[in-house]
Amino acid sequence: MFPKNTWYVACTAEDLDTKPLGRTICNERIAFFRSDANKVAAVEDFCPHRGAPLSLGKVCDGKLVCGYHGLEMGCDGKVVSMPGQRVQGFTPVKSFPVEERYGFIWVWPGDAAKADAALIPHMEWHDNPEWAYGGGLYHVKADYRLMVDNLMDLTHETYVHATSIGQKEIDEVPCKTTEEGDTVITSRHMENISAPPFWQAALRAKQLADDVPVDRWQICRFTPPSHVMIEVGVAHAGHGGYDAPDEHKVYSVVVDFITPETETSMWYFWGMARRYNPQDQALTAQIREGQGKIFSEDLEMLERQQANLLTWPDRKLLKLNIDAGGVQSRRVIDRVLAAEQAQQVQPEGASA
Amino acid sequence: MFPKNTWYVACTAEDLDTKPLGRTICNERIAFFRSDANKVAAVEDFCPHRGAPLSLGKVCDGKLVCGYHGLEMGCDGKVVSMPGQRVQGFTPVKSFPVEERYGFIWVWPGDAAKADAALIPHMEWHDNPEWAYGGGLYHVKADYRLMVDNLMDLTHETYVHATSIGQKEIDEVPCKTTEEGDTVITSRHMENISAPPFWQAALRAKQLADDVPVDRWQICRFTPPSHVMIEVGVAHAGHGGYDAPDEHKVYSVVVDFITPETETSMWYFWGMARRYNPQDQALTAQIREGQGKIFSEDLEMLERQQANLLTWPDRKLLKLNIDAGGVQSRRVIDRVLAAEQAQQVQPEGASA
Amino acid sequence: MFPKNTWYVACTAEDLDTKPLGRTICNERIAFFRSDANKVAAVEDFCPHRGAPLSLGKVCDGKLVCGYHGLEMGCDGKVVSMPGQRVQGFTPVKSFPVEERYGFIWVWPGDAAKADAALIPHMEWHDNPEWAYGGGLYHVKADYRLMVDNLMDLTHETYVHATSIGQKEIDEVPCKTTEEGDTVITSRHMENISAPPFWQAALRAKQLADDVPVDRWQICRFTPPSHVMIEVGVAHAGHGGYDAPDEHKVYSVVVDFITPETETSMWYFWGMARRYNPQDQALTAQIREGQGKIFSEDLEMLERQQANLLTWPDRKLLKLNIDAGGVQSRRVIDRVLAAEQAQQVQPEGASA
Repeated sequence: MFPKNTWYVACTAEDLDTKPLGRTICNERIAFFRSDANKVAAVEDFCPHRGAPLSLGKVCDGKLVCGYHGLEMGCDGKVVSMPGQRVQGFTPVKSFPVEERYGFIWVWPGDAAKADAALIPHMEWHDNPEWAYGGGLYHVKADYRLMVDNLMDLTHETYVHATSIGQKEIDEVPCKTTEEGDTVITSRHMENISAPPFWQAALRAKQLADDVPVDRWQICRFTPPSHVMIEVGVAHAGHGGYDAPDEHKVYSVVVDFITPETETSMWYFWGMARRYNPQDQALTAQIREGQGKIFSEDLEMLERQQANLLTWPDRKLLKLNIDAGGVQSRRVIDRVLAAEQAQQVQPEGASA
Repeated sequence: MFPKNTWYVACTAEDLDTKPLGRTICNERIAFFRSDANKVAAVEDFCPHRGAPLSLGKVCDGKLVCGYHGLEMGCDGKVVSMPGQRVQGFTPVKSFPVEERYGFIWVWPGDAAKADAALIPHMEWHDNPEWAYGGGLYHVKADYRLMVDNLMDLTHETYVHATSIGQKEIDEVPCKTTEEGDTVITSRHMENISAPPFWQAALRAKQLADDVPVDRWQICRFTPPSHVMIEVGVAHAGHGGYDAPDEHKVYSVVVDFITPETETSMWYFWGMARRYNPQDQALTAQIREGQGKIFSEDLEMLERQQANLLTWPDRKLLKLNIDAGGVQSRRVIDRVLAAEQAQQVQPEGASA
Repeated sequence: MFPKNTWYVACTAEDLDTKPLGRTICNERIAFFRSDANKVAAVEDFCPHRGAPLSLGKVCDGKLVCGYHGLEMGCDGKVVSMPGQRVQGFTPVKSFPVEERYGFIWVWPGDAAKADAALIPHMEWHDNPEWAYGGGLYHVKADYRLMVDNLMDLTHETYVHATSIGQKEIDEVPCKTTEEGDTVITSRHMENISAPPFWQAALRAKQLADDVPVDRWQICRFTPPSHVMIEVGVAHAGHGGYDAPDEHKVYSVVVDFITPETETSMWYFWGMARRYNPQDQALTAQIREGQGKIFSEDLEMLERQQANLLTWPDRKLLKLNIDAGGVQSRRVIDRVLAAEQAQQVQPEGASA
């Protein structure tokens, strides 16, 4: 239950630096490779010769050479050559639209004819000296929508991340959920509270007092298929909160690209783009380590939640106000899915 | 194929000392927790909010607080509260009758209305200064009845436990199997034999000669659903064997609580209650270690026996005289199961 | 999809030196044991008493004694005795024709009445002072025929074994495939080329120059059910290649016994019989280690190829000239299978 005519993050750009990568995205087994410095490619991970996975091969002169018997696969899924063979009649394999952008490789697992690079969302923090970015990847054995739920309802921080970013006030201050087209926004503003450990460290990193009351905000933005960007930050209380001048606040964007692998597993690309001390690479590393630890706390919960849902498939879950972000995001996903299916069953005779 | 309207050992009392425990018993996923010093509770391991396992949470003020979003579950499976929510309409989850007794937590996985704490068997060795107890737990991937078979036919000791408690005479002396109501008793008395290593050590521990002929006995008692208590001991020969005065013998009770997890896996609680040197805690630890090693020798055999039975489901096994203990115990189990099913299909209109 | 009325290598002779061995061959769970110095036996790995695996037992006085309750199984699958029991009526288990030859134990997993030891292929290198042999075993999660394909098309050496025995000329020189009855032969002769690292070492081991042009040959012989013997060697160029006098060449036979475990897994016995420096045991060990490393390079490829074929079961693979060896070998296997099935469906009344 995932849209396929859309862009997903498949891997980071560096993942293809030295060799091809085999990865399943939306049930498609795909071999990704860098054809040259400016071009990446994605083809079915299946050599038309004997069915070996092409991702075990290597790239030579821009072609993906099968590691079994040397068949040379082009970026378009057509066989270019093979030692001692005439390859004109060889069956091609599927190729997938793929783009390199913002340090990631994006793939369109569905109908290639509909792919449009302009639909890849814009990331203002990339290649911008005012921002720094660090992140990582987790493989999670759960429906990707459980991660959307997780990120669109941050009250779980109080419980799952109690020692780092959680605090009681998240529970106490109601959130507000709105929609703008296909974007779902859940926001929470907490005023005059203590900063939790993660934000104390951030304040110190920017030479701001860490022991004074702050205003804290969390603004989660879901966009289909399953990206969640979360503006987070704190400002010394009394300076305007989210709108405070830069010298009184620290803020970041939590970047979440959630890519379905199968119906019950996902690739979760997490990261943080911050707008303070962008040149401090040690800080970037330190935040990445901290964030990786925090986000790993969610994994057992989600995987065991998934196991429970498979055990009790007929139980209805509650949809509380705090769940509105996830519930509305799922509604957007359902709408996108319905539109995709409607296109597939177009009546015969209709112009394509 | 296991009775559900009965008491099983779910875990030890200490297992709940610091946090809840999630454990599947008779196919029921259950979260066990200690509500207060005098009260334990067991509820379905499923948060009615979003399906997270409650056992990943923690106990606060006697309630089980879900570790995901803070829903507070009561001992009766009813939701007590949740931050910022009105919970009156929340669907409750199932709760299970549960009792703490003899250092164990006992659970009744079936019809709660039929649960009766008086049905928990009496353990005379508990909280009795004349006895000492030590034990452990193994998870075994086999039908729980294979363990009943194993314990109700100790001829396997000759082969599986050749270096500790096995000896040829177990094979040579016939056992006698009788029934008393639902209790099945298999007993074997071996006269004027050498003590095997385990019993030599026990004799020495009680300052008794370990190199003289002994009489040895094994009296296995099965009671439904699947408890097996085995009186074991040796007496210096010529003093009356099982009935010898205390100063000529050493004896213990092997304690086995066998709890089905699924149709093909079990929780096996093993232990030994001994009636010699009860204050010697080092001896308790030493016996526990030795017994744990001996009982671990059965695990591969049972798991591979189970695999064989799944491969050849139609083969009929032999029912020899040595198997009478297991065969008759299974007959008792079948009787209990049949009675349970008869209750479930009571004609409408019948008084409950 | 494997013939069963045929001989497969089950294990090495040494595998039975100290205890029985349980191994599945062609979906049959079999307990192998050495009854005495001159006799090995193979019976179903299922004790007729309670279904325990007999292979967990031990051999006493030529019988396989069940490790659970001491049932004594004879080489013919009939129960010989059991402590305290009359065993005349005990159901026997299946026994399998088995032969010890060339350091291996050979088993006939199908109709025992058809077994004929004379059908075991002759290995001239065994117990022959002019030859030395070393080898090993890999368990591979793939259809055994994928290994036949692999060995009957050595162009893969160029890619999979690039740093040891691979070289570009294998790709460039066409191979020739012929059949002689049920034997399929694929051969390739490369003239006036550089020796790859493995053969350079072999030349040095025989005190021959390793830096001069050589002629190299590979002659793969498939015989059913799934044995592949490969004559390999190099001769200093200009002395007649394969037919060069012994002092100008080094040569070996790569020995491959491929035994199906299930439809999608196999036991792969690999080895090398060499005809140079046969007394040099350090060289034997060194070659075994090198060959083991080379052959392990194939495992991931085959297992992931198998996974791909299961994912895309309907895709047709190519059958190129380089695949002729595998394709024709599979045709022989199909012929053998068809003949076996024809025998099973013989009309009633036909003389057996």
